[in-house]
Amino acid sequence: MTTREMLLAAQGAKAALAAAGPEGRKAALLAMADALEADADPILAANALDMAAARGTMSEVMLDRLALDEVRIAGMAEGVRQAADLPDPVGKVLRRVERPNGLVIERVSVPLGVVAIIYESRPNVTSDAAALAVKSGNVCVLRGGKEAWRSCNAITQALRKGLKAAGLPEEAVSLVQDTSRDSARELMTASGLVDLLIPRGGAGLIRACVENATVPCIQTGTGICHVYVDKAADLGKALRIVENAKTSRPSVCNAEEVLLVHKDAAAAFLPMLKKRLVDDRAAAGKPPVQLRLDERAAAIIPGVPAGERDFDTEFLDYILAVAVVDDVSDAIGHIAAHSTGHSDAIVTEDTAAAELFAASVDSAAVYVNASTRFTDGGEFGLGCEMGISTQKLHARGPMGLEELCSYKYVIRGDGQIR
Amino acid sequence: MTTREMLLAAQGAKAALAAAGPEGRKAALLAMADALEADADPILAANALDMAAARGTMSEVMLDRLALDEVRIAGMAEGVRQAADLPDPVGKVLRRVERPNGLVIERVSVPLGVVAIIYESRPNVTSDAAALAVKSGNVCVLRGGKEAWRSCNAITQALRKGLKAAGLPEEAVSLVQDTSRDSARELMTASGLVDLLIPRGGAGLIRACVENATVPCIQTGTGICHVYVDKAADLGKALRIVENAKTSRPSVCNAEEVLLVHKDAAAAFLPMLKKRLVDDRAAAGKPPVQLRLDERAAAIIPGVPAGERDFDTEFLDYILAVAVVDDVSDAIGHIAAHSTGHSDAIVTEDTAAAELFAASVDSAAVYVNASTRFTDGGEFGLGCEMGISTQKLHARGPMGLEELCSYKYVIRGDGQIR
Repeated sequence: MTTREMLLAAQGAKAALAAAGPEGRKAALLAMADALEADADPILAANALDMAAARGTMSEVMLDRLALDEVRIAGMAEGVRQAADLPDPVGKVLRRVERPNGLVIERVSVPLGVVAIIYESRPNVTSDAAALAVKSGNVCVLRGGKEAWRSCNAITQALRKGLKAAGLPEEAVSLVQDTSRDSARELMTASGLVDLLIPRGGAGLIRACVENATVPCIQTGTGICHVYVDKAADLGKALRIVENAKTSRPSVCNAEEVLLVHKDAAAAFLPMLKKRLVDDRAAAGKPPVQLRLDERAAAIIPGVPAGERDFDTEFLDYILAVAVVDDVSDAIGHIAAHSTGHSDAIVTEDTAAAELFAASVDSAAVYVNASTRFTDGGEFGLGCEMGISTQKLHARGPMGLEELCSYKYVIRGDGQIR
Repeated sequence: MTTREMLLAAQGAKAALAAAGPEGRKAALLAMADALEADADPILAANALDMAAARGTMSEVMLDRLALDEVRIAGMAEGVRQAADLPDPVGKVLRRVERPNGLVIERVSVPLGVVAIIYESRPNVTSDAAALAVKSGNVCVLRGGKEAWRSCNAITQALRKGLKAAGLPEEAVSLVQDTSRDSARELMTASGLVDLLIPRGGAGLIRACVENATVPCIQTGTGICHVYVDKAADLGKALRIVENAKTSRPSVCNAEEVLLVHKDAAAAFLPMLKKRLVDDRAAAGKPPVQLRLDERAAAIIPGVPAGERDFDTEFLDYILAVAVVDDVSDAIGHIAAHSTGHSDAIVTEDTAAAELFAASVDSAAVYVNASTRFTDGGEFGLGCEMGISTQKLHARGPMGLEELCSYKYVIRGDGQIR
C-alpha cells in the first residue's frame, strides 16, 4: 500500500471513529490494549529481528530504546488503558451564545481528523500515539524509524486487531510501509489528506518539517531551557532546582542547558554549584557535570571556557553552560535571545522579580521556584501527552487530548437571514 | 527600510506593547483613531494618487474598493474606537490547577507576538488589522496591495502618530515598503521573526502561503458554501435562506455557491427557486441568478447544464450550482467531497436530520435553518474579526481578539523538584 493510498483510507475511517462516541472509543482502546498483550510473541519476534540488525551500528543507549520485553509490552498496554480512562475530549460545548436575532451559536470540540506522526527509534511511541489519537477521535498514520520498523509494524498489527474486535475500521491506525525519506516528505506535503503533522524527534526532523511541510504542523521538543538564580534566591533551593533540572534526566527536552546567575549571588552560589554538580557527583561515582563558563563565571570557579555556540546548544548531556548576568532584566534579555521557548525558570524570593520574569519570558512554560523538568503532560495533570509544542499557534507546551482537537461552530436557527 | 529590518524592529516593539497593559493599549487605539481623522487630508491626497494611477486599469468595483473619502475615513476611525472598547484578551487565566506537589499551574493568554498580514486593494484593512493587532497586544507588519500602497502608507503614518502620542513605539504598526512579490515571499519565510501570518485575499494568495510559508500561517477565506434543502424542510423558509445566502452579497466568502435539494423536495422546491431567484429578480430589475443544474435538477427546471468544475468553484457572483441528492447522507457526502470547510447549512424541520448534518459536516460553521451569511465576527458576537479561518489548527471560523492570542503556562512553586 502506498502512503497516499494509506492516507486516503485513513480519511475514509474518520467518520466511523467520530461516530463511535466516547464509549465506542474507550472500548476500542481497551481492546487495543488486550490485543497488544495477546500479540506479545509476534511483537517480541519482530523486535528481535530489529535488534539483531541494529547491533553493531547503534549505541547501547539507542539499543536500549529499541529493545522490548514482556515488561515493556505490559507497560505499553497499561499506557493504552490509562488513556482509555481519561475524559473524552470530543463534543464538548466550549462556548454558547444566544444572539439577539435568536441564533444559538455553539463552539463544539471536534477531532482534527487525520493526524500523522513521524517518530524515531522507540517502538512504544507507536501504541502511545495511537491511543491518544483514537481517544481524541483522530485517525492516525504513523511513520516510525527505519531501524524499529518491524517492531512498530507488529505493534500496529496488534492495535488494528483490537480496533477490529471493537467494531471500528482498522484504517484508524496505520503504519507507513515505506521507511525512506520520501515517505516523510510525502506526509509533510499531503495537503488535504493530513490534518495535523506532529514530528517527534531531533532538531533535524523538526527543521525538515518547518521547511517542507505544506500541511499543518506542530513544532515540538527542542529545549534550550534556562534556570536563572536571582540575587534574592534561596541558594539552597536554587541548588536543588539546578541539580534536578540538569541531572535527573539530561537527555530530555525539559532538562536545563543554561544557568544564569545574578552577579551579586555568583560569588556565593557558583562554588556551591561546582561542589554539588562536579565534585560531589564524581566522589559518588556519578557522571560529573561539565561546566562551560562565561568570563565572569570563570573568574569565580574553574571550568571549561564557554565557546561561541554553548549558549545556543541543546546538549542533552551532563554539560551546563553558565553565565553571570547583571540582574533579572539582563536574564530576561539573555533568554529572549537564546531560549527555544520551551521551559525557563527563575529562583527568587523577590515577588516583583518573579512576576517580571513570569510576564516577560515568552516560553511555553515559565517557572518560579521549581524545576523545568515538570513540563510534561502527566505532571501538568493532562494525563498524557503527544509531545511538547514550542510553537505559539494552536497549542503550547504539553499536547494532551484537548490539544489534539479542533472545534467547529454549530449554529441553530429558525429561518434567520442577514 | 528593508522588510527584514522592519521585522526586527517589530520584534523589538513586542515587549513595550505587552507591558502597556489593557489601559495602555486602549489609549493607543483611541489615539490612533484621532490621528486617522486628523490626517484625513494627507490620506485623501495619497488616495487620489492611487486612484489616478488605477483608473483605466481597474474595474469599477475594484476602484470603488480602493476609493476613500471623509466618510470612509470617519468609518475607519469609528472601527478603531469600537475595537478599543472590546474586552482586552491578554493576561486571562484560562485554566488553573494546583497539583498534589503544591505546584500552581496557570494557563495564561498572551499575544502571539508579531502578526504579519498580507492583503490586497482595500486601504481600510490597514486600520482594521492594526487596531485588532494592537488591541490583542500584537505588533503588526502589514503588506497592502501595490495599487493601494500610497493610501495604506498614509494611513499607517497616521496610526504611528497615534501610537507615538500614546507613548508606545511606532514600530508596533508598520507597512512593508517593497510591494513586489519578493516582500510577500520574505514574510512567508521569515522564520523566527513572524509569529503568525494571515493572508487576506484570493485563492492564489492563500495557495502561495500554504505552499511557501515556513512561518505559522492561517488559511482564510475561500468559501464554497452549501445549503441543503431537506425533504422535511419548510420550503418557504428554505427559499428565504437560499435567496439570502446567494444574493445578499455574492462577492463574499460566506455566500452560498451550491444548492443541494432532497429528491422528494425537488419537484416542489426547484420551480419556487427559479421563480424567486431568476424570474422575480429579472422582473424587479435586479441581476437574476444563473442556475447551473445537474441532470436531475435540469429535468425539473430550465437552466444551464452544470459543468465538471461547477461544484468546486467559488463563483463570488450571481451564479448557483444546483444538484438533487438522495437524502441527508448523500448531501453530507457531497459536502465532504466539495466543501472548502467554511460554512454549510441544512434547512429541515426534522431534528434527527439536523443533528446528523451538524455532527457530520466538518466545516468551520454548520448551520441549521439559517443563512450561511452569518459567519462573521460581528454576527458571532466576537465584536470584530481578522478573517475567517478555514483550517483546523489554532482557530476556526471568525478570528476575533481571543484567536489572535496564544497562551503560556506559568508555574509557581517553592522549590519543587522532580
